[in-house]
Amino acid sequence: MDFAYDATTEDLRERLLAFMAEHVYPAEPVFAEQAERAEQAAEDERWRRPPVIAELRERARALGLWNLFLPGGPPGAGLTNLQYAPLAEITGRSPALAPEALNCAAPDTGNMELLAEFGSPEQRERWLTPLLDGAIRSAFCMTEPDVASSDATNIRTRIERDGDSYVVNGRKWWSTGAMNPDCELLIVMGVTDPDAERHRRQSMVIVPRGTPGVQVRRGMRVFGYTDAPHGGHAEVSFTDVRVPAAGLIGKPGDGFAIAQARLGPGRIHHCMRLVGMAERGLDLMCERVSGRTAFGAPLAEQGVIQEWIAEARVRIEMARLLVLKTAWLMDTVGNKGAHTEIQAIKIATPAMAEWVLDKAIQAYGAAGLSQDSPLAALWTSARTLRLADGPDEVHRRSLARRELRRAGTGRRP
Amino acid sequence: MDFAYDATTEDLRERLLAFMAEHVYPAEPVFAEQAERAEQAAEDERWRRPPVIAELRERARALGLWNLFLPGGPPGAGLTNLQYAPLAEITGRSPALAPEALNCAAPDTGNMELLAEFGSPEQRERWLTPLLDGAIRSAFCMTEPDVASSDATNIRTRIERDGDSYVVNGRKWWSTGAMNPDCELLIVMGVTDPDAERHRRQSMVIVPRGTPGVQVRRGMRVFGYTDAPHGGHAEVSFTDVRVPAAGLIGKPGDGFAIAQARLGPGRIHHCMRLVGMAERGLDLMCERVSGRTAFGAPLAEQGVIQEWIAEARVRIEMARLLVLKTAWLMDTVGNKGAHTEIQAIKIATPAMAEWVLDKAIQAYGAAGLSQDSPLAALWTSARTLRLADGPDEVHRRSLARRELRRAGTGRRP
Amino acid sequence: MDFAYDATTEDLRERLLAFMAEHVYPAEPVFAEQAERAEQAAEDERWRRPPVIAELRERARALGLWNLFLPGGPPGAGLTNLQYAPLAEITGRSPALAPEALNCAAPDTGNMELLAEFGSPEQRERWLTPLLDGAIRSAFCMTEPDVASSDATNIRTRIERDGDSYVVNGRKWWSTGAMNPDCELLIVMGVTDPDAERHRRQSMVIVPRGTPGVQVRRGMRVFGYTDAPHGGHAEVSFTDVRVPAAGLIGKPGDGFAIAQARLGPGRIHHCMRLVGMAERGLDLMCERVSGRTAFGAPLAEQGVIQEWIAEARVRIEMARLLVLKTAWLMDTVGNKGAHTEIQAIKIATPAMAEWVLDKAIQAYGAAGLSQDSPLAALWTSARTLRLADGPDEVHRRSLARRELRRAGTGRRP
Amino acid sequence: MDFAYDATTEDLRERLLAFMAEHVYPAEPVFAEQAERAEQAAEDERWRRPPVIAELRERARALGLWNLFLPGGPPGAGLTNLQYAPLAEITGRSPALAPEALNCAAPDTGNMELLAEFGSPEQRERWLTPLLDGAIRSAFCMTEPDVASSDATNIRTRIERDGDSYVVNGRKWWSTGAMNPDCELLIVMGVTDPDAERHRRQSMVIVPRGTPGVQVRRGMRVFGYTDAPHGGHAEVSFTDVRVPAAGLIGKPGDGFAIAQARLGPGRIHHCMRLVGMAERGLDLMCERVSGRTAFGAPLAEQGVIQEWIAEARVRIEMARLLVLKTAWLMDTVGNKGAHTEIQAIKIATPAMAEWVLDKAIQAYGAAGLSQDSPLAALWTSARTLRLADGPDEVHRRSLARRELRRAGTGRRP
Repeated sequence: MDFAYDATTEDLRERLLAFMAEHVYPAEPVFAEQAERAEQAAEDERWRRPPVIAELRERARALGLWNLFLPGGPPGAGLTNLQYAPLAEITGRSPALAPEALNCAAPDTGNMELLAEFGSPEQRERWLTPLLDGAIRSAFCMTEPDVASSDATNIRTRIERDGDSYVVNGRKWWSTGAMNPDCELLIVMGVTDPDAERHRRQSMVIVPRGTPGVQVRRGMRVFGYTDAPHGGHAEVSFTDVRVPAAGLIGKPGDGFAIAQARLGPGRIHHCMRLVGMAERGLDLMCERVSGRTAFGAPLAEQGVIQEWIAEARVRIEMARLLVLKTAWLMDTVGNKGAHTEIQAIKIATPAMAEWVLDKAIQAYGAAGLSQDSPLAALWTSARTLRLADGPDEVHRRSLARRELRRAGTGRRP
Repeated sequence: MDFAYDATTEDLRERLLAFMAEHVYPAEPVFAEQAERAEQAAEDERWRRPPVIAELRERARALGLWNLFLPGGPPGAGLTNLQYAPLAEITGRSPALAPEALNCAAPDTGNMELLAEFGSPEQRERWLTPLLDGAIRSAFCMTEPDVASSDATNIRTRIERDGDSYVVNGRKWWSTGAMNPDCELLIVMGVTDPDAERHRRQSMVIVPRGTPGVQVRRGMRVFGYTDAPHGGHAEVSFTDVRVPAAGLIGKPGDGFAIAQARLGPGRIHHCMRLVGMAERGLDLMCERVSGRTAFGAPLAEQGVIQEWIAEARVRIEMARLLVLKTAWLMDTVGNKGAHTEIQAIKIATPAMAEWVLDKAIQAYGAAGLSQDSPLAALWTSARTLRLADGPDEVHRRSLARRELRRAGTGRRP
Repeated sequence: MDFAYDATTEDLRERLLAFMAEHVYPAEPVFAEQAERAEQAAEDERWRRPPVIAELRERARALGLWNLFLPGGPPGAGLTNLQYAPLAEITGRSPALAPEALNCAAPDTGNMELLAEFGSPEQRERWLTPLLDGAIRSAFCMTEPDVASSDATNIRTRIERDGDSYVVNGRKWWSTGAMNPDCELLIVMGVTDPDAERHRRQSMVIVPRGTPGVQVRRGMRVFGYTDAPHGGHAEVSFTDVRVPAAGLIGKPGDGFAIAQARLGPGRIHHCMRLVGMAERGLDLMCERVSGRTAFGAPLAEQGVIQEWIAEARVRIEMARLLVLKTAWLMDTVGNKGAHTEIQAIKIATPAMAEWVLDKAIQAYGAAGLSQDSPLAALWTSARTLRLADGPDEVHRRSLARRELRRAGTGRRP
Repeated sequence: MDFAYDATTEDLRERLLAFMAEHVYPAEPVFAEQAERAEQAAEDERWRRPPVIAELRERARALGLWNLFLPGGPPGAGLTNLQYAPLAEITGRSPALAPEALNCAAPDTGNMELLAEFGSPEQRERWLTPLLDGAIRSAFCMTEPDVASSDATNIRTRIERDGDSYVVNGRKWWSTGAMNPDCELLIVMGVTDPDAERHRRQSMVIVPRGTPGVQVRRGMRVFGYTDAPHGGHAEVSFTDVRVPAAGLIGKPGDGFAIAQARLGPGRIHHCMRLVGMAERGLDLMCERVSGRTAFGAPLAEQGVIQEWIAEARVRIEMARLLVLKTAWLMDTVGNKGAHTEIQAIKIATPAMAEWVLDKAIQAYGAAGLSQDSPLAALWTSARTLRLADGPDEVHRRSLARRELRRAGTGRRP
């Protein structure tokens, strides 16, 4: 259980912190302005990345800050989860810019991991290479509008074999990135065998975006935000969409297992960034209260504000340690062995970040609700992560059952 | 302490509930679509009320559901606070439509009350009449971007006498409604005498929107929402804006007292609507969990969901009773005598509504974050009310001081 | 929904407040000393009421402050729940002394109500009269050690008919008051017909304490407190205890219904007193922080303390209003019609009081944990009421089910 | 930042876990019975350790589980804080027995550390040796009844030089252990120079218990518990108590610095044990809910209970990691360098344990409030630690100030 940052990590942290200070933070107002302008653009243009992101990506790549998320040897950056964690945390300080700048943003990261681990050589060459290169984008189509998707057995989309093809029918939503015209690739989860055992019914298939029958219908908003610069969150319908059988990922029935494998790292990446989001919130809160006065005293000297600051620091530290322990476990006993801890951080970290950011907003005053500070978007982001990748309640239920089984054995944790 | 709904209230409640069911709820998706479309409209058009609101207003007026908020005899509707409270609560169930439909929406209501109570006959004729008639709109310019506005003595905008005129210089923001081109009237708070006693420094003056030097600069967003259909929340600058001296409301130095008088009823209206917002959230939660199944059981039968529902009901009931008691007190001992209770509801009600709506979103799943349910906007709305009209912390501080003085006397509450 | 205190209530409040100030509060240290001394007394003496209570009882009775809890005409005091609520609240300020002083303490009150409503004329004469007179005491034997008693169908004690007798076998605990040698009467709930419909299996029977086979085994402690001055909380075993058949209360199978009827008023009495307990806590907190200084400022001027005080006041007010509404409902639509509200106050009030008292202790410092202030005992008392008379979770579950049914009908609350 | 348990730790953990299973847990009911009986004993006997503790001490010592807390070479056990932490955690599972069994209980541990670090050779020989040997006991006299002792500058006890003696006058309370007749040694903090700089006014002096003028007046209760088996918590008065000048610890004016040094390790020991207390609570909760049924389903399958279990596990893990990090920091950068983290765990850990134990009690039902389970005492214990060694609010205030200073520099944490 050694969480120290090693030399590789420290070196990358230094370079990343410098990149943040010199390029990312200064780019935030530029990004905001470009995003604002894009909202008034024609439908086609509205969902593209603002140009400032492209500039940041070029620079990050030149600095060797690229694809750090992908474990294992090339094409992976070769970082362990424990090495990547503090880097992802730093990108969380500016979550609208930094992860994309480093080609480390969801959902592309999850899709790349999936293709790297489960894709056939052809699939990897056709899709993984350009994704790693940042030339195209991708979406993940799992959640459906009509059912409680937290229970994967509720999925209704059908993927039916027909000769050398699979035919996809169904409706998905919250397919992040799919509004962006550069998104060429949809990974779709659906039922291939409704009569199989519960967790062998589903499969995943690659659907090129241009395939007839694919219709990207609209962008979902998240608390008023379109997230257009990130390609939005699309509702997509699939009507008799025919793809070659070779587009199936893994074997028929592997869908659930692949999804679980994909979600593990995805969840820890979210949690790493959430720690950074909370740090940013605490920084902004400290800065603001040091410069404002009300009722005769600087806000920074008022007891309630100090209580928030202390409590924020304590909560952030605890969450970070749990994330680091989880990363270390994933590295040492594998994603499956770290299952309980992954659930634990998925429960603890969004709530922590939401709490810190809520207090930061309260200390900030009305500006904290607006486009003039990053706090509003950070807070709603943290809130969505109490639902995204499984609601807290589902994780708690599962974690409790394990705990009950463990307790029953008398084994000490 | 009699909170029963009398015959007048019951009659109006029936009519209002029918209006909600027949007209308001069905108009919600229409409104959403019109608002969405308006976002792509030209700058001039973007901040107007969607047409469906005009239709609702016409209907409400024809049904006698108009200007109910204004106490006292004509032009007031003659309702007491206790009579108005349950009606405002009902409008809170659809806060984007119902309050405007009844000409009972902030900030116009506060401005109308202010003009009715403190305006000169000329001011009332020129501005109050068309506001009551719904012909024009108005904004209230108090908060400033550079200071902690929760402490009114921080205000920096200057209103200086120069012959028969006042000259206004300063910058305001969060002037709700001012982006709407129909907003013809700005009520501006500023310093007339910096050397006077703390609470006699400020005055309020009417600034017609077209006056040279008034510049409506941009709309503030609230968690991604522009609130364009309500005229947005404007940042407005005033540069050597010259208005006739007769535009001053009340006497020089009255600004603080008028603001306090304006905020009392404004706060209770917010709280009444928040109770309705929470009721809507609970309704939507109950409806949703009754129709969805996960892990083998309807959500409605899962213990955690039941706990939320029960807790929501209990919290709503307590908050409503405190709001009703406050309304009754305002009616019987006046706004000043109800000061502590007004603070109490301003502390309790937004937090209650935020809690209920958060749970409703969690039960609802991802749809609850999006434009497909009212929950996302309701929740962020509730959140803003922990800051609007004074942050919770300022109210708590003031309420505690009163309590400490009371306790010192040994007098029982 | 008129909660105003009427003339009767106001008169009794005045007299009761005077009694508290002149007699009860001054008796608190005397009581503490007598209780402390009794702990070292012989087993027989240890569980008796300290003499100061007898003195207070005499005085209260002389002042007409006696048996106020019992509704209806004589022997009842004739107060409605709404009239009694503010009086019970006042007794809650000194819950170890005032309720007993007024012969208004659990479990005797519940037992008297039960006998008044369901007892036969003989039962009333034999037991109710001396209880009202304060000559004897009683206990209620419902909870059992081996099962989750929150579900009444779990009860295992058997009450079997044998000729003209019933024979009782079983084990009960938390029989408050039964350690006191003056406790002459045990009302025992048990199964008479295990094959009947779920809620018709149980009956209640009167067991005179001296009956052979009754064994009062030991006193249960509550967080270290023996509650000896109140007769403790006994574990009692019943071994072939034979009582005359005329000792059955009501008819065979009525047990569950009688228990429900008994618990309704009992719960509201608890809640009324809890409001008073919280008021006492807030008073003590205000007093303490006004007299202590730390880090250069009186505690009363420190922001965190002020936040507690304000929040305490708000929470107390809301809980009191809900209790008053419940009392009013019980008076107007009956205990059954007020079922939901009784559950609501049982959920809300103990948690509120626990919160306020926790903060009072924290403001008080270590003295607040000790016998030198009433806070420690008040806090643990409030905590036990999240379990006593049904754990919060059971009430929430039941309340949620009603709410879901209501919501399904589209009927507005 | 390596928290792994090394071989020494693992070995000691194994032995300690075996000792707990074979000796400590089985001794709990024996202890309870002996303690109960002692309450009825004569004053002299009442405050002694129950005999079962002496037996456990003998066994623990024979097993080499003795004085593990003391760092550094002999007489210290030579364990680092990181090595000791998991052992102290285990003793926290049975905090009334295990720490004393291992001669690792407060306040003796703190006093031994203090003597080992600051005592003169004579002081160490006279007092430290028998304490390490377990032959005598000691008390620490710091807190005073009349002032807010969280601010050390409030201390009023005087220690005045008079020739070769110091003369002590003052009143202390919460001197844990001092009711026990074996307590031979009081370490007293008082003012030696009221005119010195704030933190140089106080000194510490050794007062042998038999010195004339020392009066142990009474035991303070903690929520009804006397803690008699641990020597209680005494109020002690000092009237012209004359001790040799050589009894001063360190130099005049060192009192505050020594107290700070003493409290650092003391706080982490408390926090380590609190983690164990919470683990015990979670174990008991899991065990109980697996064996009880209500409303047709085992409690273990009810959603609300599962939520508590999951949340408890997550909170415990986070708190443990923060404690381990703090221990590691103390080992690597010293107690002073770990100041912020010590405050952080002192804030986070008692609240965590209180939360877990509260839920365990709620799941346990009424038995959880009583002497029949360890939960009641564990919960009140956790509660006292939000005040003991400084209230949370004082730690938060101090931690916030450091955070504000750090944030002002732009340095990342």
